[in-house]
Amino acid sequence: MIKELTSVKNPVVQSAKSLQTAKGRREMNAFLCDGEHMTGEALQMCPEKVGALFVDASAKERFSGLLAKAQPETDVYLVSRAVMEALSQVKTPQGIAAVCSLPESMPLSRQGKRLVLLENVQDPGNVGTILRTLDAAGFDGCVLTEGCADPWSPKTLRATMGSAFRVPVTFAKDGPSACGELKRLGYAILGAELHGQPFYQRSALPEKLCLLIGNEGQGLTDASLETCDYRFKLPMLGGAESLNAAVAAAVMMYDIMNR
Amino acid sequence: MIKELTSVKNPVVQSAKSLQTAKGRREMNAFLCDGEHMTGEALQMCPEKVGALFVDASAKERFSGLLAKAQPETDVYLVSRAVMEALSQVKTPQGIAAVCSLPESMPLSRQGKRLVLLENVQDPGNVGTILRTLDAAGFDGCVLTEGCADPWSPKTLRATMGSAFRVPVTFAKDGPSACGELKRLGYAILGAELHGQPFYQRSALPEKLCLLIGNEGQGLTDASLETCDYRFKLPMLGGAESLNAAVAAAVMMYDIMNR
Repeated sequence: MIKELTSVKNPVVQSAKSLQTAKGRREMNAFLCDGEHMTGEALQMCPEKVGALFVDASAKERFSGLLAKAQPETDVYLVSRAVMEALSQVKTPQGIAAVCSLPESMPLSRQGKRLVLLENVQDPGNVGTILRTLDAAGFDGCVLTEGCADPWSPKTLRATMGSAFRVPVTFAKDGPSACGELKRLGYAILGAELHGQPFYQRSALPEKLCLLIGNEGQGLTDASLETCDYRFKLPMLGGAESLNAAVAAAVMMYDIMNR
Repeated sequence: MIKELTSVKNPVVQSAKSLQTAKGRREMNAFLCDGEHMTGEALQMCPEKVGALFVDASAKERFSGLLAKAQPETDVYLVSRAVMEALSQVKTPQGIAAVCSLPESMPLSRQGKRLVLLENVQDPGNVGTILRTLDAAGFDGCVLTEGCADPWSPKTLRATMGSAFRVPVTFAKDGPSACGELKRLGYAILGAELHGQPFYQRSALPEKLCLLIGNEGQGLTDASLETCDYRFKLPMLGGAESLNAAVAAAVMMYDIMNR
């Protein structure tokens, strides 16, 4: 179905716009992809989950390739610039956006061998960057506690650069309960923390492992640290006291995969 | 000198607030540190550069330790909450801010052995995170081209977590001219790029080196790539096509320092 929409007040537009908030996403069980790259990833990875496409009517030729990938059931709306601007959180919207239904939480028992668990990582940029890096490094999946930034918020999604569609995510109540289940499933638990052992002097690690990354200010909770089989610290040779959470995760993941 | 200031319209407040913009920083040759941590770093690392301190009058007891570190020449302003909010770009200002004079560009010939050159890295968070990581990893200094985000903007400064005060920064016109000078000074040039050689299969690197990190979207310019002694690519084992610039820089710096 192709339909024209020019008013920002149209209920279809308003309900898509509500997906910019956590409340809206929860209520509609959907999220919003903004821009050519993200919409392309959605149409590539899970076309059946794309419920609606919004395209700037004046730019529809430019997106004809993308539109051709839409399933027949997907509603396509040709919209005004004003509608595009209402749906987007970036200054210059690219002219295409998609509404997708939220993926289900992946059961831990179905996750792969190498995981990252984020415990209350609050910055959307950090959560998004870690999903992107995890995907690039070749880790298999991610566990997010309730205290983490929502992976389906526009800001997190932008930072993932599309990896949100590829990385299986398990939602867990909190770090300690997730670690308990990971241990029962045979994962070795590695905590990244400022008082750990020197990371580069470690002995060989088990193949099945989960790297724990804690909150930006507080680090990992004591209860989660207690479940760790290994606690590692990256060297701080200069004056800085700590690393950004996404940087620490990246350095450890790449080293684990390549040494 | 201790003085009370309650009006946001006071010229002293307005001129400090102008330091939130690149134009203001250039005109006044100064920058603004917001919050306890950054102000503390400024008073610790370069107290003679701190021209003025702004303290929330209702919270001055809490900052008495910091205020004691101020030099006699530093102007101290006890200000209203409204003034604090005008000076800060965060939602809940911590109640202390400092005006510092800008450090001079470090001549390349006085930089240390291991450098990072950022070519048109535009995101303030990326520039700030790379300065923080460089400081932690034990690299010696940074070269920024004119196309980079300003290291003294409030957003970049926040991401450095204080490392901006410790890392010597050289400002260069562009990548190729800086690389030319680096080569004359005996640095090996390493480019991080998506078409490079496998990073983890490299042979031993010279001690004196400069790692080049390019723009978030375009990567390094061809002219800079041509100056490279080595071009390296990090493995992309999953579906992601690339890494965030700060992540790529971090993984390479830490590996160079620790293998």
